Amino acid sequence: MNAPTHPDDLMPEVHQREVPQVLIDALKVRFSERCSTALVVREQHGRDESSFTVPPPSAVVFAESAAEVAEIVRLASEYAVPVIPFGVGSSLEGHLLAVQGGISIDVSRMNRVLSVNADDLTVTVQPGVTRKQLNEELKSTGLFFPIDPGADASIGGMSATRASGTNAVRYGTMRENVLALEVVTASGEIIRTGTRAKKSSAGYDLTRLMVGSEGTLGVITEITLRIYPLPEAISAAICSFPSIEAAVRTTIQVIQLGVPIARVELIDANTVRMVNAYAKLGLREEPMLLMEFHGSPTGVKEQAETVQEIASDHGGNAFEWASTPEERTRLWTARHNAYFAAVQSRPGCKVISTDTCVPISRLADCLLDSVRETDASGIPYFLVGHVGDGNFHFGYLLDPNLPEERVIAEKLNHDLVSRALRLEGTCTGEHGVGLHKMEFLVNETGAGAVDMMRTIKRALDPKNIMNPGKIFAM
Amino acid sequence: MNAPTHPDDLMPEVHQREVPQVLIDALKVRFSERCSTALVVREQHGRDESSFTVPPPSAVVFAESAAEVAEIVRLASEYAVPVIPFGVGSSLEGHLLAVQGGISIDVSRMNRVLSVNADDLTVTVQPGVTRKQLNEELKSTGLFFPIDPGADASIGGMSATRASGTNAVRYGTMRENVLALEVVTASGEIIRTGTRAKKSSAGYDLTRLMVGSEGTLGVITEITLRIYPLPEAISAAICSFPSIEAAVRTTIQVIQLGVPIARVELIDANTVRMVNAYAKLGLREEPMLLMEFHGSPTGVKEQAETVQEIASDHGGNAFEWASTPEERTRLWTARHNAYFAAVQSRPGCKVISTDTCVPISRLADCLLDSVRETDASGIPYFLVGHVGDGNFHFGYLLDPNLPEERVIAEKLNHDLVSRALRLEGTCTGEHGVGLHKMEFLVNETGAGAVDMMRTIKRALDPKNIMNPGKIFAM
Repeated sequence: MNAPTHPDDLMPEVHQREVPQVLIDALKVRFSERCSTALVVREQHGRDESSFTVPPPSAVVFAESAAEVAEIVRLASEYAVPVIPFGVGSSLEGHLLAVQGGISIDVSRMNRVLSVNADDLTVTVQPGVTRKQLNEELKSTGLFFPIDPGADASIGGMSATRASGTNAVRYGTMRENVLALEVVTASGEIIRTGTRAKKSSAGYDLTRLMVGSEGTLGVITEITLRIYPLPEAISAAICSFPSIEAAVRTTIQVIQLGVPIARVELIDANTVRMVNAYAKLGLREEPMLLMEFHGSPTGVKEQAETVQEIASDHGGNAFEWASTPEERTRLWTARHNAYFAAVQSRPGCKVISTDTCVPISRLADCLLDSVRETDASGIPYFLVGHVGDGNFHFGYLLDPNLPEERVIAEKLNHDLVSRALRLEGTCTGEHGVGLHKMEFLVNETGAGAVDMMRTIKRALDPKNIMNPGKIFAM
Repeated sequence: MNAPTHPDDLMPEVHQREVPQVLIDALKVRFSERCSTALVVREQHGRDESSFTVPPPSAVVFAESAAEVAEIVRLASEYAVPVIPFGVGSSLEGHLLAVQGGISIDVSRMNRVLSVNADDLTVTVQPGVTRKQLNEELKSTGLFFPIDPGADASIGGMSATRASGTNAVRYGTMRENVLALEVVTASGEIIRTGTRAKKSSAGYDLTRLMVGSEGTLGVITEITLRIYPLPEAISAAICSFPSIEAAVRTTIQVIQLGVPIARVELIDANTVRMVNAYAKLGLREEPMLLMEFHGSPTGVKEQAETVQEIASDHGGNAFEWASTPEERTRLWTARHNAYFAAVQSRPGCKVISTDTCVPISRLADCLLDSVRETDASGIPYFLVGHVGDGNFHFGYLLDPNLPEERVIAEKLNHDLVSRALRLEGTCTGEHGVGLHKMEFLVNETGAGAVDMMRTIKRALDPKNIMNPGKIFAM
């Protein structure tokens, strides 16, 4: 695994296949104004939150049903043209980019919550439903969907990237919370991968194979999810620490004791400073943990007392509490605004986000060494982390006019990933591989495992039309 | 889906491929006395707890490392001869049967706990380690591995069948608790499917693809598992109910309220009677729930009070409590002895066990109709269930000299599965498909999903040597 040394090393390989006019014409006839070739529409569907730039897809089709998705895939398959599913475009790793050309299938109009089974704690949705929309629609039921990756991502996209976020420490990731899928395969067939039963040993786990496959094995057209009763009591707190190490050691001990904490997020002093400047929150400009406790009133009290005791052993300050929804929102604003606050701190900057995740016992080693390296580099950054899961993100804030900064940032990320892998961790806890981590994946799992992935891809998508060029090179 | 009408319909298809003597000779040279062709050894490896009988494998090789497993697979592959992994032989669905002939790879000597990472709550084991052995070795650490399928199964076998059992309602199944695997592929390569990170978005979820693949995609040679801190407090209770329906309705409400109950098992009156006769437990011969609560002392108390209130609303009796380990063992003896007690109630009988799992809101419908049908059939049976997950087992107690009983039992199972599928459930919650549920699988997932499984199998095992003839026909 070699770190890039020149800005040119950082561009994804682009091999645009021909998209014959006859295919575009056929899509226009079939979908009329729902098939767009307008440049502005194509460009909007040809980029995401990653820092890559490649030519946009040749057309965008707004699908309204699984049957329509299947039709588009069958047509594209006829001409061996790539198809790329599109939800809201919040991917961070170039998943949406048409590196081999092709057609973008926009599923944002497939945005209905199809059924809520409150008694079974399941819900079935179309892929364009966003997580905030889902929670809005669940509001009256006393239930909620906990997975919160920050962005108001689509459930289809969250499934495809195996997303997680702040609540994963308690509720798991999309891996644990997707019960079943409807998927359009590379041949344009519609299949179902599971039932609403909570557990099953019925053959290969196609659900989990599709979750995290980044659109390379099929287009997800329906998702059945686990949902949860809103906790009787919710309490949030922030606590400042004399050092990142003290905050991390506190987290490690909380997890090792088995405290069922719902959220435990780290923000470093530097990032608190950015957030204060952005939102005038007046927080202590020290490393900070934001925590949330879910449960019965006594359970929440018990958890909080335990954590407070551990924090104080590590020099943490008294908790600042938030028990009403309004106060909680104020506290969580700090976390949710970190990205925007950081971007604003260096106007016009582009962000590259890291995503390593290590076993919790290795978290301090992994994080502290990388903080030292990043500080020494002079690259401005923010640092936030789902530290209860051993997952954290540096966001390097890069001046797009200074390509050498990008090289330095990629070198930092490269060294961080190498360190995480040495510590038995992964290069990506929740963002996915996309275009950006293909080499890291080989280093992480070994060539044999990636070969197995490639063999599966080749078998299920022999024409290589499902979002090609992502996760691994064929 | 047609129910069988004749005992001959119940036999698995057997097409034994030739196992050339040159292969046996090569294995004998390489493994000397660890390669056995003694009939008694082969027969012991050619059957499991299912009711099928087929000719045994041609040889049994006792492997002692992943490298040895890989060697055996490479040799077998050279001659396109099937290999069948063997742990302790506790499978219920014919997984171990050499329906296409071949070599049994016994991994029971690969029984070392390789590392315990108490700080990360992970453990890495060889596939022959059994769950009781693992918990014995964890005893001094204050940690435990919760998955308990009843039998003292091997961790390799539990992974291969996606096993679960009594604790799954709180701790999940093997799907949620296997973090990473080492696997020998069909070409005899050794690959790793994950890291010790708690979550990851690094490419296809090969771990989950292998978990539940029943040996048809590879031989599992190492498993990294999640483990848990022993709860501060554990309390168990039994409660009798005036009807199965009352017990089931109690369970449904407990789950829907989000009570984090660790175990909730149903035993019907008939089975309590058998258990009393077997173990002189003096239990009330009424439908019964056995429950266990894990947590802090106040948390456990709170959970128990909530459940007791719900039970009493449904006519449940006062709880009989067990807080010391000895008392708990006595209560759980009832559950753990149910199988043996039932077998003893009809000496010489063979058991066929059902394994449907439905969404919890459908549990009463599914269970009660099947109880009526089974009562009407006159076939003796026991009934136990992991009802918190919507999973339950009828065990039909069949006289092997009366093949018509087997036909009746299969008809009952057939109708039960049809009902479970109509109610959005699965034909197998935890036992796997094996030989017994291949037709049910197609009905459950549809031909498209099974075709996808078949395509994956063909791609990863082109010679069809990895435990062939299981899950689906090629």
